[in-house]
Amino acid sequence: MLRMAVLGCGRIGQMHAANVARHPRATLAGVYDLHAPSAAKVAEAQGVRAFASAEEVFASPQVDAVLIATATPTHADYIEMAVAAGKAVLCEKPIDLNLARVNACADRIKGTKLPIQLGFNRRYDPGHSAARKAMQAGEIGELHQVIITSRDPSLPPRAYLEAAGGLFRDMTIHDFDLARFMLGEEPTEVFALAGALIDPALGAELNEIDSAMVILRTGSGKQCHINNSRTAVYGYDQRVELMGSKGMLISDNRKPHELRRFTATRTEGAEPYQFFFLERYLEAFMAEIDGFVDCVEQGAQPLASFEDGRRALILAEAAYRSLAERRLVQVAEIA
Amino acid sequence: MLRMAVLGCGRIGQMHAANVARHPRATLAGVYDLHAPSAAKVAEAQGVRAFASAEEVFASPQVDAVLIATATPTHADYIEMAVAAGKAVLCEKPIDLNLARVNACADRIKGTKLPIQLGFNRRYDPGHSAARKAMQAGEIGELHQVIITSRDPSLPPRAYLEAAGGLFRDMTIHDFDLARFMLGEEPTEVFALAGALIDPALGAELNEIDSAMVILRTGSGKQCHINNSRTAVYGYDQRVELMGSKGMLISDNRKPHELRRFTATRTEGAEPYQFFFLERYLEAFMAEIDGFVDCVEQGAQPLASFEDGRRALILAEAAYRSLAERRLVQVAEIA
Amino acid sequence: MLRMAVLGCGRIGQMHAANVARHPRATLAGVYDLHAPSAAKVAEAQGVRAFASAEEVFASPQVDAVLIATATPTHADYIEMAVAAGKAVLCEKPIDLNLARVNACADRIKGTKLPIQLGFNRRYDPGHSAARKAMQAGEIGELHQVIITSRDPSLPPRAYLEAAGGLFRDMTIHDFDLARFMLGEEPTEVFALAGALIDPALGAELNEIDSAMVILRTGSGKQCHINNSRTAVYGYDQRVELMGSKGMLISDNRKPHELRRFTATRTEGAEPYQFFFLERYLEAFMAEIDGFVDCVEQGAQPLASFEDGRRALILAEAAYRSLAERRLVQVAEIA
Amino acid sequence: MLRMAVLGCGRIGQMHAANVARHPRATLAGVYDLHAPSAAKVAEAQGVRAFASAEEVFASPQVDAVLIATATPTHADYIEMAVAAGKAVLCEKPIDLNLARVNACADRIKGTKLPIQLGFNRRYDPGHSAARKAMQAGEIGELHQVIITSRDPSLPPRAYLEAAGGLFRDMTIHDFDLARFMLGEEPTEVFALAGALIDPALGAELNEIDSAMVILRTGSGKQCHINNSRTAVYGYDQRVELMGSKGMLISDNRKPHELRRFTATRTEGAEPYQFFFLERYLEAFMAEIDGFVDCVEQGAQPLASFEDGRRALILAEAAYRSLAERRLVQVAEIA
Repeated sequence: MLRMAVLGCGRIGQMHAANVARHPRATLAGVYDLHAPSAAKVAEAQGVRAFASAEEVFASPQVDAVLIATATPTHADYIEMAVAAGKAVLCEKPIDLNLARVNACADRIKGTKLPIQLGFNRRYDPGHSAARKAMQAGEIGELHQVIITSRDPSLPPRAYLEAAGGLFRDMTIHDFDLARFMLGEEPTEVFALAGALIDPALGAELNEIDSAMVILRTGSGKQCHINNSRTAVYGYDQRVELMGSKGMLISDNRKPHELRRFTATRTEGAEPYQFFFLERYLEAFMAEIDGFVDCVEQGAQPLASFEDGRRALILAEAAYRSLAERRLVQVAEIA
Repeated sequence: MLRMAVLGCGRIGQMHAANVARHPRATLAGVYDLHAPSAAKVAEAQGVRAFASAEEVFASPQVDAVLIATATPTHADYIEMAVAAGKAVLCEKPIDLNLARVNACADRIKGTKLPIQLGFNRRYDPGHSAARKAMQAGEIGELHQVIITSRDPSLPPRAYLEAAGGLFRDMTIHDFDLARFMLGEEPTEVFALAGALIDPALGAELNEIDSAMVILRTGSGKQCHINNSRTAVYGYDQRVELMGSKGMLISDNRKPHELRRFTATRTEGAEPYQFFFLERYLEAFMAEIDGFVDCVEQGAQPLASFEDGRRALILAEAAYRSLAERRLVQVAEIA
Repeated sequence: MLRMAVLGCGRIGQMHAANVARHPRATLAGVYDLHAPSAAKVAEAQGVRAFASAEEVFASPQVDAVLIATATPTHADYIEMAVAAGKAVLCEKPIDLNLARVNACADRIKGTKLPIQLGFNRRYDPGHSAARKAMQAGEIGELHQVIITSRDPSLPPRAYLEAAGGLFRDMTIHDFDLARFMLGEEPTEVFALAGALIDPALGAELNEIDSAMVILRTGSGKQCHINNSRTAVYGYDQRVELMGSKGMLISDNRKPHELRRFTATRTEGAEPYQFFFLERYLEAFMAEIDGFVDCVEQGAQPLASFEDGRRALILAEAAYRSLAERRLVQVAEIA
Repeated sequence: MLRMAVLGCGRIGQMHAANVARHPRATLAGVYDLHAPSAAKVAEAQGVRAFASAEEVFASPQVDAVLIATATPTHADYIEMAVAAGKAVLCEKPIDLNLARVNACADRIKGTKLPIQLGFNRRYDPGHSAARKAMQAGEIGELHQVIITSRDPSLPPRAYLEAAGGLFRDMTIHDFDLARFMLGEEPTEVFALAGALIDPALGAELNEIDSAMVILRTGSGKQCHINNSRTAVYGYDQRVELMGSKGMLISDNRKPHELRRFTATRTEGAEPYQFFFLERYLEAFMAEIDGFVDCVEQGAQPLASFEDGRRALILAEAAYRSLAERRLVQVAEIA
């Protein structure tokens, strides 16, 4: 059994703690949160200890690995501390909002044999994953185009937006990673167009965008479109379309159940895609831990690595430059 | 070009006249209706002559074939007159509401080489027809069960109900025929259960039923369920399901177009199946004429024959007996 | 926390033990199985004790309630012993294959205040449950017809069939219960037709059926059709259709994920419904335990009661009589 | 009855001739084709006269209006000749491949009261049209994003590609028009990225592209994505998605019929979208003529005007400039 400690007891940390606790090959060795009462609450619910500090976690011989779900600015530091302490790492995205900091972190942990896995949960989604496997099995011939639709159900709180680091670094970063995952080669060019269509006033005030369209192209010419919105009132909209020379694959949205309504005004009406990420990607979050345990116990390579986290951030930076300069940006200009 | 005259200028006769008129291998030789003004109206719209009597139609050397869409009580007489006059026949269902009359008609036209085709339009529906072809191609292995859902959008006018001859002879007769078409062998046993659930008062007054469930079994044991309702407020509901040892085929409902609506309360909402038979089976009605032209010009066997019309009526009679005697009835008891 | 012991460590007992173990308001107090090694295996996996006998379970002060998942012939005895010992009961269906034994059990436990819940998991399925709620909210007006499609993915092993008690008592019993749950009133008439279409030889040898069609009618005239097959090669097929005066509701099948394939030969192709009951109804099995905890802790009435189990068995008996006598059977003839 | 002559008897001209011939409010006054035998063939099939020259058509007092379906280079000339002759015009797209020629034509016909309608058939598609109506009725609140998927089933013949004028002017022009139709305001910025992914060799040889992604933005900030491919092996792929503040609308693909296949390897498999434009947009082509008759007889404004044809071409030019200069292009730079 892999003994994992969870750092950060917010919404996503609580979910991770519960997932680790019920994982057949992992045990929850304890939790930590800067805000002690939060840690205490989760510790009690799971019947595990609450660590007094992150240092205590890294120092504990009872801990084999850490799952970092704390505030973004602490991610890089904790990754470095964990590696120094010889603990395997599963870290939530993003590594950091600042590329220089990410690169510095990369240097400091260079050469470590410890598994460091990034929390790009979508790579573990059953539907997205089955689409990739079908493509790799040749079902659609040669891949030509990828279309990613990624829309949140509603605008997050203002406080969240102020700390998130911007749409491309906070939200689109998942899509940049998914694009790389599906394209199978590095995007070399990025174009981005965006605006504040949902709440123009807030957008102007925070200089933030809430709706965006991005186009990526790889070295071999493969094309990828990403469209984002912060307000899909019909629910969390997560679709991936793979278009190839011999067919197409679509990983479509998931409903809470399969009830269909037929009335005098509408037929086949289904439930809203009410899920947000905790519900929509629940199976993916579980599979993510499963994959992590494999990495630690069998030395498998993480499906989502530290470098994947760095690459996704580079694409976000390229998107911001494209937005500012209104042109197709070479990724090489950033990296 | 096959010169066809249409007898009967009601709702369905008008449609047939228009379909014949625009058919590439047929021409509308004229129309007739007991109510002269109705015939005149259609004749003018199609730019053809209006015959003064059915006799005149049968006597006309300008007419190769007749499409009978008059009131049910005239069908058998007109079929006999047409055969006597050497005209090929495409006749709307049912042949007659009285089995004895149908049998007498069968005797009188016995031995004719003239094509006599029944208006079981559903046999020509692209979806139903593709399901049957797939089954015959072995896609579902051996057929075990057939489920037919057949529901009209709303209760017909009282006058219609009084003349229609009862749900099983008027409406279910299409499903009895479709069952035989799909089962590929004769049903030998029939059970029926029915009631007036939509309008109990009217049902009691006319001694008529508006909702029914029927089960058929063939000699080899294949099972078939038919469910009927006179009031599918979401539209004309026409589904056929074929369940076999290696798979299942479903010929599902057709929508006017493929718009899907996504709101905060519903997703994937489609249009009502607003079509009634004239719209839902338009392609089938066209294909029916196509098949008829093939019969006359190339001597092909009608996909829906006079005997098919007689067999469907026998099943309706068996269903009524089952309803009265609350037991599984042998079709042989009727025929 | 409700302390539950699980009796029976077969496939379904193992699932129940795991579900109880991870339930937030229940704890697994231990497990028992006639075959000690099976109990030991589950006990170790869950980190709980293995009881040496059922008697020991009922005598244990550490046990508040029992979940009975042993062989059918033991159900009635264990229910009686549990009640005598003051333990709440969640019992897998059927109570017993013999109606007289069920009635005797009913007499012996008459008047108990202890919650006794039957394992009719489908009542707890999110889709089926949402359909019922929508109907009760008046979305389809007055209910007229219920169509239940219930097909297992493949024929069970011969040994299972020999002990199962027959299709109607073993498999259709779930559909009889679901029909009662949806109809909202007692079926008063039953007609059944069945045969061995999948494996006629085995059917003849065991005098067992593998394909069936049933029709039920309630006192007020509502109609219900159930169709069963033991071999839906495309996966466990579980559909419920509610047809009413103002609309229709369909609780459709659930897929493992939402990948759609588009090729030169097929479009929109989805995954097989590979789930069998453990997968298809996983959420339902969890909700079932949730409902049971509510019954014990808050005195709620079980959504599926002992009497519901008895009623379903009566319908199975009526179906067998209809099969034998080839007629519509009054439920009152059995009860 | 509106007397219409059809110029051009190629694939699309033949379809238009047949549609006009069977239109209830129009008659086919005759046909013309540079290649006399082609005209003769269609004339005979429809039972109408074949004109010896375009001049003869424009001079004929038996002709009220002309439908121009000849080779693109003749469109502008024929429009001018028709206007000079006082004939109403329904002209296939594009007006011309050269913007200067289109502008010159605009000058020459300036001020005419004659209806001049462009063949942007998609505006008349029942699904696309219903989506627009629902949006205009406020069903999705304020429009934020439009996603248009437009893919042909296969690469056209080399000869076609050599004359077509390039992907953006020949194929995407329909999508540029549809984007304007749905956005409800003029796009002011265009970005395009494209390549020859299907047949790189042919692409290099003809300097042609076969796969493209375009982004448009309107003055108020609305965003639109168009993706094109010349080889959707699963059939003609035509989807329009409208994303708004209160919901989403998707006009999805149309299948030949609604058969679904369920096997051990796939469920819900539908037919390929085998239709190309003649089949997929048949209803739209009919409605297009209907709308044209309304324009001539009731003085209605064409739903697709000459100016719409000019605007779409301007967007195509802007897309080519964006492709060459790898930047976001202002539409004002072109117009």
